[in-house]
Amino acid sequence: MAAAVREVRAANPLAPSITNTVTQNFVANAQLAVGGSAAMVYLPDEGECVAALGGAVYINLGTLLPVYEETVPRTARACAEAAKPWVLDPVGVGIGSLRTELIRAVKAWPAAIVRGNASEIIAVAELWGLDAAADNGRGPRGVDATDSVEAARAAAVAIARFSGGAVAVSGPTDLVTDGAVVVRAEGGSPLMCSVTGSGCSLGGVAAVYACVADPLTAALAATAAYNRAGAQAAERCSGPGSFQVAFLDALAALTPEEVADAPLAFEEA
Amino acid sequence: MAAAVREVRAANPLAPSITNTVTQNFVANAQLAVGGSAAMVYLPDEGECVAALGGAVYINLGTLLPVYEETVPRTARACAEAAKPWVLDPVGVGIGSLRTELIRAVKAWPAAIVRGNASEIIAVAELWGLDAAADNGRGPRGVDATDSVEAARAAAVAIARFSGGAVAVSGPTDLVTDGAVVVRAEGGSPLMCSVTGSGCSLGGVAAVYACVADPLTAALAATAAYNRAGAQAAERCSGPGSFQVAFLDALAALTPEEVADAPLAFEEA
Amino acid sequence: MAAAVREVRAANPLAPSITNTVTQNFVANAQLAVGGSAAMVYLPDEGECVAALGGAVYINLGTLLPVYEETVPRTARACAEAAKPWVLDPVGVGIGSLRTELIRAVKAWPAAIVRGNASEIIAVAELWGLDAAADNGRGPRGVDATDSVEAARAAAVAIARFSGGAVAVSGPTDLVTDGAVVVRAEGGSPLMCSVTGSGCSLGGVAAVYACVADPLTAALAATAAYNRAGAQAAERCSGPGSFQVAFLDALAALTPEEVADAPLAFEEA
Repeated sequence: MAAAVREVRAANPLAPSITNTVTQNFVANAQLAVGGSAAMVYLPDEGECVAALGGAVYINLGTLLPVYEETVPRTARACAEAAKPWVLDPVGVGIGSLRTELIRAVKAWPAAIVRGNASEIIAVAELWGLDAAADNGRGPRGVDATDSVEAARAAAVAIARFSGGAVAVSGPTDLVTDGAVVVRAEGGSPLMCSVTGSGCSLGGVAAVYACVADPLTAALAATAAYNRAGAQAAERCSGPGSFQVAFLDALAALTPEEVADAPLAFEEA
Repeated sequence: MAAAVREVRAANPLAPSITNTVTQNFVANAQLAVGGSAAMVYLPDEGECVAALGGAVYINLGTLLPVYEETVPRTARACAEAAKPWVLDPVGVGIGSLRTELIRAVKAWPAAIVRGNASEIIAVAELWGLDAAADNGRGPRGVDATDSVEAARAAAVAIARFSGGAVAVSGPTDLVTDGAVVVRAEGGSPLMCSVTGSGCSLGGVAAVYACVADPLTAALAATAAYNRAGAQAAERCSGPGSFQVAFLDALAALTPEEVADAPLAFEEA
Repeated sequence: MAAAVREVRAANPLAPSITNTVTQNFVANAQLAVGGSAAMVYLPDEGECVAALGGAVYINLGTLLPVYEETVPRTARACAEAAKPWVLDPVGVGIGSLRTELIRAVKAWPAAIVRGNASEIIAVAELWGLDAAADNGRGPRGVDATDSVEAARAAAVAIARFSGGAVAVSGPTDLVTDGAVVVRAEGGSPLMCSVTGSGCSLGGVAAVYACVADPLTAALAATAAYNRAGAQAAERCSGPGSFQVAFLDALAALTPEEVADAPLAFEEA
């Protein structure tokens, strides 16, 4: 993890995004804060182009536009063809039909990292027809989790085994797995839930680290960096407005050692 | 008003939005700061879906996309069919033809709360053919008001009587009416005009309160909260950048009593 | 330059934008901070409408949507027909085919100010077939410059001579030219590159100044204001999050004299 953090600061890798309009600015600024470079696009041939240009692509389904019907599958396929990792953030899965259709479509070129809250990870496992996923009989609630992180453990492991990559489940205790090990990470701050885009920007930062590291290391480095910077920012702020400002400052100031020293608990999957 | 503020913090209601891309992030963060939950969408079936999921929907016409031609009427109709309140923010009315067309179309399922600056409220009354609205012979100026709040009093009352809901006119002194009473609210700060999205996010917060309260109470609570948080933030900032940060902090820290104690002047409509 | 800064604060001119969704909020807040007014649109007839309403239009090609195929040329033409200046920010030129097509299309109604990083300016000169532009044989990298400002000098001069306006090349030392003189401006801060939208918002502010001043003066005033505010903000911040906040505060507090006193080095083109 320390090596990934260091290499990103040295190499300034480009991790382009197709991401929601609500939190685009925060995603880009978080990617810059850790030392990466950002570029956001919407059009199909632009998705293919940035997949070729970048080291890893971040695809977030938060605010779908009609053109995403073409852009998302073509970009995922372009990543697969160029052997570039991509990160899937299945925000709001269950809202509308296109979101469901796109998640099913990209199963053909699965993301190296799937990042989401517990409800989103369970929904992806269901849509991909993976064994571990029992239909929980609940519909979408919006964009917030209604399931606990532990409830998504089996779904996360199943997705990681299917994709050969990693899955990161965000929550009070985060869970990251590559299908072989399950890692739990503590830290962060409840204030992260009071700023829109904490999860999205974590996905964007995971894509930056995926430019230089394997999916598990990238997902863990991003998670550890967020927990550390979130805890530091919480000490220096007076509410959600100043938390976001302090968080970007803390993220930019993190040393590789601070990220690597994050307390992680490993177990077999 | 105090009850609405308290209930929102306890229940964390979801107030989804179809809102402009310029200020989406601020709208979402303001909704989170008062204790609500946010989700933004663009597609027609997603608008219908979030109308069913949420407690109230915020529709802001600031940056129209082609798909809004379907999304806005279908979402307004879905709200009506589900008996969910929705908030209309007619930003930029007069710019282009789709904006005019959409405002006319949603007259069939009128918003529980219409929020805008004076010029926008007058324009909506005109487009809805309401008596009080005299054509003022001016075209659009952009997104800023060119009429005084008092000039919009009759239009606001007419809209509220037509819709059976409430209308909130933002300005140096705000005016809120349900067609029976007219309430004027002081406070806030001129700095609110130097931060884009102060009005939009007020509309989004009104939708959060409309999840748990009647339209007049929701509009007044949002207006009072903004005036109080705006005044507090103005004391703690050094310009528009730090004002926005301090404003979100203040909004998150507001007590129900501070909102309820806001100075309001009531008169018959 | 001092007169332009003063007149903008007095007249609050409207500089509408068609601009990318990543940095829209920062563009609008920067335009407000210098005393202008902002409005962002996407649809073709809205572009034409705001070209008529505003004093100058800012067009940024960062995140293209399908509708831009019509909106961008129609808005550029509407500016030309109304003799309104417009500012072109060719972000991400080289990514996808529509971007290239749009830059070629607007050559018919060239921008009064073209603002970009060195790579973008060289690319525009190439796409417009201007003599000074030698094909540098490199493809797009994303949205960041891979060429030095000095390498773009000839391209900038050629564009300015063709358009009869000005060109601003952003970099460690900025270069601004009207085809007759070349001006270099020092200042700013490396932190400006760690906040997404520093360049975009400079373009938006140049459009605000272009409402009241000739293209060269407007481009220089915006560049000088950014360098001054950037240097001030860098002294008061603890990282990229607080830099952006301090930058907007500093921009709002700048005096006409501080902008006019910026160190500029003139030479013949």
